[in-house]
Amino acid sequence: MQTNRQIHLVTRPKGMPVLDNFKLHVAQVPQLKDGEVLVRSIYLSVDPYMRGRIGGRPSSHPPFPLNQPANGDGAGEVILSKHPDFQPGDMVCGYLEWADYSVLCGSSLLKFDAQTVSATTMLSVLGMPAMTAYFGLLDIGKPEAQETVVISGAAGAVGMIVGQIAKIKGCRVIGIAGSDAKVDYLVKDLGFDEAINYKNANWIGELEIASSQGVDIYFDNVGGNISDEVMKRINRHARIVLCGQISSYNLEQPDIGPRNFRHLIVKSAMVRGFLVLADYKERFPEGRQQLQEWLKQGKIKPCETIMQGLENMPKAFLSLFSGNNLGKQLVKVEPSYAGRACLI
Amino acid sequence: MQTNRQIHLVTRPKGMPVLDNFKLHVAQVPQLKDGEVLVRSIYLSVDPYMRGRIGGRPSSHPPFPLNQPANGDGAGEVILSKHPDFQPGDMVCGYLEWADYSVLCGSSLLKFDAQTVSATTMLSVLGMPAMTAYFGLLDIGKPEAQETVVISGAAGAVGMIVGQIAKIKGCRVIGIAGSDAKVDYLVKDLGFDEAINYKNANWIGELEIASSQGVDIYFDNVGGNISDEVMKRINRHARIVLCGQISSYNLEQPDIGPRNFRHLIVKSAMVRGFLVLADYKERFPEGRQQLQEWLKQGKIKPCETIMQGLENMPKAFLSLFSGNNLGKQLVKVEPSYAGRACLI
Repeated sequence: MQTNRQIHLVTRPKGMPVLDNFKLHVAQVPQLKDGEVLVRSIYLSVDPYMRGRIGGRPSSHPPFPLNQPANGDGAGEVILSKHPDFQPGDMVCGYLEWADYSVLCGSSLLKFDAQTVSATTMLSVLGMPAMTAYFGLLDIGKPEAQETVVISGAAGAVGMIVGQIAKIKGCRVIGIAGSDAKVDYLVKDLGFDEAINYKNANWIGELEIASSQGVDIYFDNVGGNISDEVMKRINRHARIVLCGQISSYNLEQPDIGPRNFRHLIVKSAMVRGFLVLADYKERFPEGRQQLQEWLKQGKIKPCETIMQGLENMPKAFLSLFSGNNLGKQLVKVEPSYAGRACLI
Repeated sequence: MQTNRQIHLVTRPKGMPVLDNFKLHVAQVPQLKDGEVLVRSIYLSVDPYMRGRIGGRPSSHPPFPLNQPANGDGAGEVILSKHPDFQPGDMVCGYLEWADYSVLCGSSLLKFDAQTVSATTMLSVLGMPAMTAYFGLLDIGKPEAQETVVISGAAGAVGMIVGQIAKIKGCRVIGIAGSDAKVDYLVKDLGFDEAINYKNANWIGELEIASSQGVDIYFDNVGGNISDEVMKRINRHARIVLCGQISSYNLEQPDIGPRNFRHLIVKSAMVRGFLVLADYKERFPEGRQQLQEWLKQGKIKPCETIMQGLENMPKAFLSLFSGNNLGKQLVKVEPSYAGRACLI
């Protein structure tokens, strides 16, 4: 029996989570049943929506149980298989535990060709954040050429892809992010038309100038007073795509702000929230195919921030709330994995 | 030259409007130009959206100019015509001044057959509030049989028709209104499944019981804390139709409340505001035809509250904010008009 390091949630935070809410636990790798596959984790993903899962409150996903491994998106290698579609050595994506090894139903796994696509790209530009960006922007936002798209959390895993797709669609793209380095990256590397550091004292004035034509689509990952300011600038028939509200995830008191429904009436505007897994899962292949095409054409660039070591999963997760990550925040769990040269 | 009594807006209110914001002014009826029609007002409509027009703030319509007659929906009789489609004696609906007489472009008027439809019905169940209810509920709310529809301001001109259309579509209908008499009327006369008086101390408990299956469509005329409570009960893929926010129209300070975007994400819910004239005007004939059909079949009942006398236009308008009206609030301007027996 092989030992298996796991990260457990051991207490639920009130307000901002801390490292002590998690504990490293050493277990044994269980035996496989028919249909199951043993996967060694290579990269694991941390995502803002997991804040809901570590709290006891209702959220988009069921809570992480206490004293059990947390889980989320990951990429890894098949070590043992009792499922006919998988062989040792296969590279797969799936809902992996925060652990060195996970036992999973083969039917829940997506095999990928590591000579074509890197494991990190599978979790970033072809992963859940990318599906979120793709369906949120295209299916809900319905961008038209020349329209102005504003994105909050623009330097995050979802926001970056939203902006790049909006550019492909011919829109004017304004990103809002939390550091000058992020703002530079969005404009210089990803081709956003404008980017604004909301920590600047005059960010509202900058937003006014950048959005002088008004805002047709607001792709919101953040909420709070950033959204209040963007909402003041929406055009008639604006679409507000609600993806996340990270500004409120760690609040202990109810989030209070200006009521904006009246403004939505005057502008005949729409606000729509969505959960990409619940609402679009059956269309993921379509999204992945299009994004892979854009990747090959160089129209979309992947961007990941990678921390090392399973033991750093909690730290990587907490970093999402201090805004340290640029693009997709991943943790490399298997230090010896070198990957292979691959096309995208 | 004939004298013409008019109601002018003379000062703009801060907060709740008062009678002194308006003044009766006596003018002369002007000469007609080619294409124009002189209409004698019979019934004039007052509507909550006019609160925006008497303020200086941007709203759905241009502000009423000071020291000029206000205007709005009305029904009247053609007295003189320099437009080939209209003859003296024709009954018309249009955007009439708050006055005994209005001079209007013939092209802006809708002729109706007073033997078929009464003038008050033209302004209620076949008028703008009805178009608002019809397109807001059917085009934005998209009700399905068995779904639960909650309506705020349910005993108002729009809310009453929303509820009756929702019943035709097989929905469970819950109305929220501001008096026991209104609640009784909604349930006993209009066939709502439930109605709740939000002035009762336990109205939230009543709403919880009435909406035990959750809320699929919320047709909102009111906003504020009534909406906060309804929003807590929305189901997955709920549609919130924003028609009005009368609770905030007379506030002097910005309206503050719980931010609810996060909740919209968890429920994959949609909120859409609309302005019926701007968004649906070209489809009004379709709406009128269907509503006329339902009226003939007895599936929709008209309901109007009628005040007498042009001089009472300001009072009738103010009554909208104290919730005195049941259904469409009209003012009968021409006391001698008796109408004729008509089908609907």
